[in-house]
Amino acid sequence: MKFMWHRLICKNRINLRLLDNICRSASLCAQNNKHETSSPHRLFLGASIATLLAYKLYDYKKNLAFAEQEASDTKAGVAREGLPYYSLQDVSQHCNKDTRIWVTYKEGVYDITDFVEGHPGGDQILLAAGSSVEPFWMLYAVHNNPHVWEILETLRIGNVTKEDAGKLTENMSDPYSTDPKRHPVLHPASVKPFNAETPPFLLVQQFITPNELFYVRNHLPVPKVDPETYELEIEIEGKNKTLSLTLDELKKLPRHTITATIMCAGNRRSEMTKVKPVKGLSWGAAAVGNATWTGVRLRDVLALAGVDEDAAFKHVQFEGLDFDPTGKTYGASIPFWKAASKRGDVILAFEMNGVPIPRDHGFPVRVIVPGTVGARNVKWLARIIVSEKESDSHWQQNDYKGFSPSTDWDTVDFTKSPAIQELPVISAICQPSEGQTVQTDDGHILVKGYAWSGGGQKIVRVDVTLDEGDTWHVANLDHQDTAEPPQHWSWTLWSARIPVKPGTKTVQIWAKAVDSCYNTQPESFKNIWNLRGVLSNAYHRVTVKLQ
Amino acid sequence: MKFMWHRLICKNRINLRLLDNICRSASLCAQNNKHETSSPHRLFLGASIATLLAYKLYDYKKNLAFAEQEASDTKAGVAREGLPYYSLQDVSQHCNKDTRIWVTYKEGVYDITDFVEGHPGGDQILLAAGSSVEPFWMLYAVHNNPHVWEILETLRIGNVTKEDAGKLTENMSDPYSTDPKRHPVLHPASVKPFNAETPPFLLVQQFITPNELFYVRNHLPVPKVDPETYELEIEIEGKNKTLSLTLDELKKLPRHTITATIMCAGNRRSEMTKVKPVKGLSWGAAAVGNATWTGVRLRDVLALAGVDEDAAFKHVQFEGLDFDPTGKTYGASIPFWKAASKRGDVILAFEMNGVPIPRDHGFPVRVIVPGTVGARNVKWLARIIVSEKESDSHWQQNDYKGFSPSTDWDTVDFTKSPAIQELPVISAICQPSEGQTVQTDDGHILVKGYAWSGGGQKIVRVDVTLDEGDTWHVANLDHQDTAEPPQHWSWTLWSARIPVKPGTKTVQIWAKAVDSCYNTQPESFKNIWNLRGVLSNAYHRVTVKLQ
Repeated sequence: MKFMWHRLICKNRINLRLLDNICRSASLCAQNNKHETSSPHRLFLGASIATLLAYKLYDYKKNLAFAEQEASDTKAGVAREGLPYYSLQDVSQHCNKDTRIWVTYKEGVYDITDFVEGHPGGDQILLAAGSSVEPFWMLYAVHNNPHVWEILETLRIGNVTKEDAGKLTENMSDPYSTDPKRHPVLHPASVKPFNAETPPFLLVQQFITPNELFYVRNHLPVPKVDPETYELEIEIEGKNKTLSLTLDELKKLPRHTITATIMCAGNRRSEMTKVKPVKGLSWGAAAVGNATWTGVRLRDVLALAGVDEDAAFKHVQFEGLDFDPTGKTYGASIPFWKAASKRGDVILAFEMNGVPIPRDHGFPVRVIVPGTVGARNVKWLARIIVSEKESDSHWQQNDYKGFSPSTDWDTVDFTKSPAIQELPVISAICQPSEGQTVQTDDGHILVKGYAWSGGGQKIVRVDVTLDEGDTWHVANLDHQDTAEPPQHWSWTLWSARIPVKPGTKTVQIWAKAVDSCYNTQPESFKNIWNLRGVLSNAYHRVTVKLQ
Repeated sequence: MKFMWHRLICKNRINLRLLDNICRSASLCAQNNKHETSSPHRLFLGASIATLLAYKLYDYKKNLAFAEQEASDTKAGVAREGLPYYSLQDVSQHCNKDTRIWVTYKEGVYDITDFVEGHPGGDQILLAAGSSVEPFWMLYAVHNNPHVWEILETLRIGNVTKEDAGKLTENMSDPYSTDPKRHPVLHPASVKPFNAETPPFLLVQQFITPNELFYVRNHLPVPKVDPETYELEIEIEGKNKTLSLTLDELKKLPRHTITATIMCAGNRRSEMTKVKPVKGLSWGAAAVGNATWTGVRLRDVLALAGVDEDAAFKHVQFEGLDFDPTGKTYGASIPFWKAASKRGDVILAFEMNGVPIPRDHGFPVRVIVPGTVGARNVKWLARIIVSEKESDSHWQQNDYKGFSPSTDWDTVDFTKSPAIQELPVISAICQPSEGQTVQTDDGHILVKGYAWSGGGQKIVRVDVTLDEGDTWHVANLDHQDTAEPPQHWSWTLWSARIPVKPGTKTVQIWAKAVDSCYNTQPESFKNIWNLRGVLSNAYHRVTVKLQ
């Protein structure tokens, strides 16, 4: 049988039995591994973290003197003369520290025992222990990189026997082969998984971002879901019964439409990383969009399941239909009050800007948690669990959290920071762009951008300066929703026409926003730097040439 | 009849008929004045604005060349030879621009027509047109200042006739004579009205601030209210019936206790004013306190009056029993959703830290609007109005709002900014204090402070640095309420023990807090400066000497 990722979705549940022997052998070995048992949720590292793997591996390489001598045109996984041959059975015996940890890549056999600690993805690498890294590298395509291959070859201990070579991967297809087509104007931050942002100047052309231009943030391959067989499950902790709703049943509930901005926690990360490198996709300022979402209120669905606003639960967990090679799905949770409150406006959306939600954005059903970081707006929604506990997913526990600027990867303790929910106030200049030559108009330049704040707060002012804050110009708030805080979910589009001194050749434009709590943006990235590069909401600074 | 301010409270309503002829003549003339009709709410300027009057008047003085020649030991209001004499009847004819605007002060007659525009309190001055300024100067004692007297004498045009001299004020007593006694350790920012803060080092000694040490923010004299005759009125716009509740009736409703921090919008103003002068009381970092408040839920009282959470009102207005010489009471409003929501936790409190609320804090009933600026926590509550509109009081409309750093008193338009409600994230270092000599302990110094955020957000981290942000130390959050956001109303007390390099003589300590929305403080006052000096939440910076 050909290994087809999308076939793994049986109705809307993942059928682990369909995972082929490649994945099973990998995960079984990992499950036996002592390293895993202590913190299973740490095993999985988001694709987001994986994207800076190349950087970290390069860093690691610098510490290996012998790597300096080999390198450059190393061909990874090619059979090398003079090295011993091992069968896949031999390799499978080496799946923990006591036996040493071996993996294969194509025809190569590698002892990664001493590398595990330096692996930027942490224990994640142990999923491949005693087996092939290839299914994982297909998922996190950042590994397909000469720097990574170089490091890998420094760990080389042998070759796979001719009989076994290729057997582990012969039925494996690209898990991304069924991803949807995307508009070519989207600017990718990574291709597998697909993550891409809108060109900033397009972002400020209209209050509602068209679906095709809306930024895409995928952690895993896009599942192919049959709306006819789709079912949403709702579990209440402590109750035996699970509520199941088909798409048709869901659509029969009272409909609710909201206009809400969704933003990635890593939006504007590329600016923070200039202070000191951070891990994560190198997003510009356009990992954000504003859309109209139609669906049913989550609180109505919870009420159907017998849970009302006054119930004593603390969290509502979500699981997506997207999953990794071990069958682990994307997951996240939000506080119960937000889920159950009428004022929270959380919906299970099946329409985006008046049409069925496109596959990249969660077809057929996505949770929209307005005012809350994109990561909790779970796409391809499979399951809702009302619980005393947060989701134990990697993305809730060990990602999407803020830390002090002095916390590094040696000192970080993810249990010490809360999962990001409502996002802080932010703004960005979308026009002109960095380095652009701008034609002045009667001694003025036109600056356009967006501003937004989480938690249903409204933008009350945007200030723009061309002289490092000696003079601030109050921008016009051109497009803004009429909803009042704390239910103001949309961004504000703004513009300012600012005088420049005659003869000025270059100006740096700064923008900062103030929200209805009068929270404002921090000035610089230095003092809000964090190792994951999230919450990058310092003043936006854009330098342009004048003509 | 001797003019006794506290006698004006008849039951809990202000009896305008008891206002004596001094005040009546002043207000009647003002009511006839064309300047007032357009914006009645602008007439009243808070004592808070009045406190920097001296500064502005001094500024005005600099523009009057002849003032430079007179000045210094001018005695204001003393009869001056060579000037014409006017009866009070003559003076009363001059109460608008057409007739020129005259006022008296003791035995002096002054033409203030050309000064009105430059008066920092705006149209407020017109209340005295055709009469004496003295009742107002008793209320806003900042006028009793040599700088003010100097300016006044530059406007001198005559003397009050011997027959009339003293008549206007002969029955006038000090409206503050019945204010309560205060603990001598409180540090006054103004005495009449009384405004004072706690010594900062005392603030961080305990999570709950003792009543006697709790900062006091009064806009007017403290009313003396008889709890036996006290009645609270609740009006619903569009309904003819008004609900009245005695204190006993109120206390029969279900009780609700919350622990909440109350903070003045002007807390830490003295730091902002160093960048460029602002108007307002010169508060340090201790115009804040944390207490336990017991009362009844406002939503329960609204329900008694027939208004539930889903009603279509927008605002809930409050009126206090404190009032100015024209009978205008202190007033403010909050959004209806906050007032009516269970999660809003708004209470009508009659106990503070387990005892009846002290007079300075609102005896017998004060609104506690947790997470919201102190100015909306109306004391000596007389009346609640459920409305489509915000309170039209000066303090809601023309005070307690934020503006861009480039907005000055010539360009400000108070209709353009929203009234401050929920406050932004803030922190302060309370120990050591600015300029203090600190004994190091095994090469470390101990820093203590508070942090808080409005809107029910919790403090998730406090960062402290001694090297301008090159190294940030994460403080211990020593005392924090267990309530979860968005119902976390109390401050967090924190401490940090930070190493100092041997031989260091002086360090500047910086502190900044991060709340559960991951909003953080702005770095410097320059870019958040505003003409009223509110929302002063930049990093707190304290320089100390080491021993």
